[in-house]
Amino acid sequence: MKAVDEMPHGEFDYIRAWTSGRQSPSFLRASGVIQGIGDDAAVTDWTPGMQMVISCDTMVEEIHFKTVTIKDRDCGYKAMAAAISDLAAMGANPKFALVSVSMPKGSEERRLQDMYSGLYECADRWGVAIVGGDTTASVSGISLTVTVIGEVEAGKALLRSSAKVGDVVFVTGFPGRSAAGLDFLLGQNKDSRQWEAIPPGLTRLIEAHCRPVPQVKAGRLLQELGVCHALNDISDGLASEAWEIVEASGLGIDLIEDRIPLAEELLAYARQKGKDPIDFVLYGGEDYELIGTMPAGRALETQIAFKDAGLTMHIIGYVNGDHRSVMLAQSNGALVPVPKHGYNHFGKE
Amino acid sequence: MKAVDEMPHGEFDYIRAWTSGRQSPSFLRASGVIQGIGDDAAVTDWTPGMQMVISCDTMVEEIHFKTVTIKDRDCGYKAMAAAISDLAAMGANPKFALVSVSMPKGSEERRLQDMYSGLYECADRWGVAIVGGDTTASVSGISLTVTVIGEVEAGKALLRSSAKVGDVVFVTGFPGRSAAGLDFLLGQNKDSRQWEAIPPGLTRLIEAHCRPVPQVKAGRLLQELGVCHALNDISDGLASEAWEIVEASGLGIDLIEDRIPLAEELLAYARQKGKDPIDFVLYGGEDYELIGTMPAGRALETQIAFKDAGLTMHIIGYVNGDHRSVMLAQSNGALVPVPKHGYNHFGKE
Repeated sequence: MKAVDEMPHGEFDYIRAWTSGRQSPSFLRASGVIQGIGDDAAVTDWTPGMQMVISCDTMVEEIHFKTVTIKDRDCGYKAMAAAISDLAAMGANPKFALVSVSMPKGSEERRLQDMYSGLYECADRWGVAIVGGDTTASVSGISLTVTVIGEVEAGKALLRSSAKVGDVVFVTGFPGRSAAGLDFLLGQNKDSRQWEAIPPGLTRLIEAHCRPVPQVKAGRLLQELGVCHALNDISDGLASEAWEIVEASGLGIDLIEDRIPLAEELLAYARQKGKDPIDFVLYGGEDYELIGTMPAGRALETQIAFKDAGLTMHIIGYVNGDHRSVMLAQSNGALVPVPKHGYNHFGKE
Repeated sequence: MKAVDEMPHGEFDYIRAWTSGRQSPSFLRASGVIQGIGDDAAVTDWTPGMQMVISCDTMVEEIHFKTVTIKDRDCGYKAMAAAISDLAAMGANPKFALVSVSMPKGSEERRLQDMYSGLYECADRWGVAIVGGDTTASVSGISLTVTVIGEVEAGKALLRSSAKVGDVVFVTGFPGRSAAGLDFLLGQNKDSRQWEAIPPGLTRLIEAHCRPVPQVKAGRLLQELGVCHALNDISDGLASEAWEIVEASGLGIDLIEDRIPLAEELLAYARQKGKDPIDFVLYGGEDYELIGTMPAGRALETQIAFKDAGLTMHIIGYVNGDHRSVMLAQSNGALVPVPKHGYNHFGKE
């Protein structure tokens, strides 16, 4: 297998070999790509009346991922999903991506190919055109930076700072599963790749960790309904994201423990491990579900619209004007403060 | 001095501390920034009739730079300049940037601050609004990825692939100085920071290496004059960039050695070291000057327009329909093939 430092000189040569023709010319044309990979920069068209929404996300080997817990292909997929998720959290539609990969000299070419396969698989699934990037050597480990550019109806981006008193707090899907999947993978023998033999019943937790679903459909639905005030994606745990809305909006949030949706497989895993399932939800992260706020009076119609679209949404709390923190109304009736960070895998920064 | 891992948890906290208010609200508003740093993604306005131009560039410590040859502040400056240069090479106007920085835990906070100071200094100089990014831990060394987004008049981006038979080849400024500056810095005692005591006469070479000038003004002037066919920035040496135009356009280039502009300080340095100055130009890179092609009949008016704008431009060769390579007509009358890569500092990929 050819190693990176045996490949033809220069980033351009070996990116081109794997990316040339990877997305069809007709898809690229339909996406508004005038010039994709292969020049100093990409050139794209733009939709009149739309504003641009841009985000970037970096994943570093040994900091954000380890080869014992995730396959290279899934890692590429997840890096793209995480970047797309930031746009979903603005109610925006992702359109273009740039990918920068750094990898040690002497790495197996196969690893880079697998990463790119995952990046493209995820981009294809959400209709994102990869229009450029950079490939460089690194001193140790792989590092991936994905920049995603999308568009949103002018003036309609869903910001963290727009929560209002009287809003309910909602969450999409069933968060906490990614953290439980990671907990399983980290708890196994560190020398073997545990995703090669996943026990039945854990598949959905592992899947949630390795192949998260950016909630573009939910974000766009919220945008179309025009119901949403604040919105955030859950990259760092429900607690941290609720805190970000609190800090940006200058209001408080009360979460109701009994209302927080817990997936069957998460409950089963937590029971087996003797852990509290709510900890995975509050402090786990990397689910890329959405947390947001909307007027209480519009919650029911929104839940129905979500159901009709094959999505789920639960009301899990209220925006509170009396304090500026995140509180949890526990099942036992106590109201306790929720710290911003209670869980931090790999000491991730 | 506070270290990275003693700082408040999370990327957001410590980016915010250094970036909050760094660019004035009135500048950001005038740039069309609706939502800058502080949400899941940035939101910006767009100019009707313009197309989007996007590029990203990664610089890795020990691969692309070393602390013995460049100050952290200059490193930040240069990373931004390199990314802006890619847009200059499309004839585009840079507008927005995202910055991703990875740094080992335990790093001095001062290093990150210096990097950001340089990034902002360069962004300010070229009117670029930094609207987002990511900050993560790394396993070893600093890694910087800068994404720059700009705009160009629809259909007017200057591509590598547009060279035509009968075009002359031109270059802006005086390339080769950055490589000579690096040659000096690398040739010194590796344990001391040589940029702290630069001999008189070498200042302009070191400056060219540490604080390159992206040729936005030249790119925009070429755009306005409507004279330019192909255009490329010199990030990897004149030879490599000429080869990229050759490969993208499917034509040949003949360079004329005697026409290639050599700065006085480059000649003096090469003479002192017993090296051929032309090697620094052909294989040095990182000057971020522009190389391009235009119809021979429009060269004179373009040179006058450049002079009026305080810029320089030299005709250094011809586009040739007879071969598909880069050739050099030497001072001694011989026509020799120019290899794509003859010089490769640090074994950079």
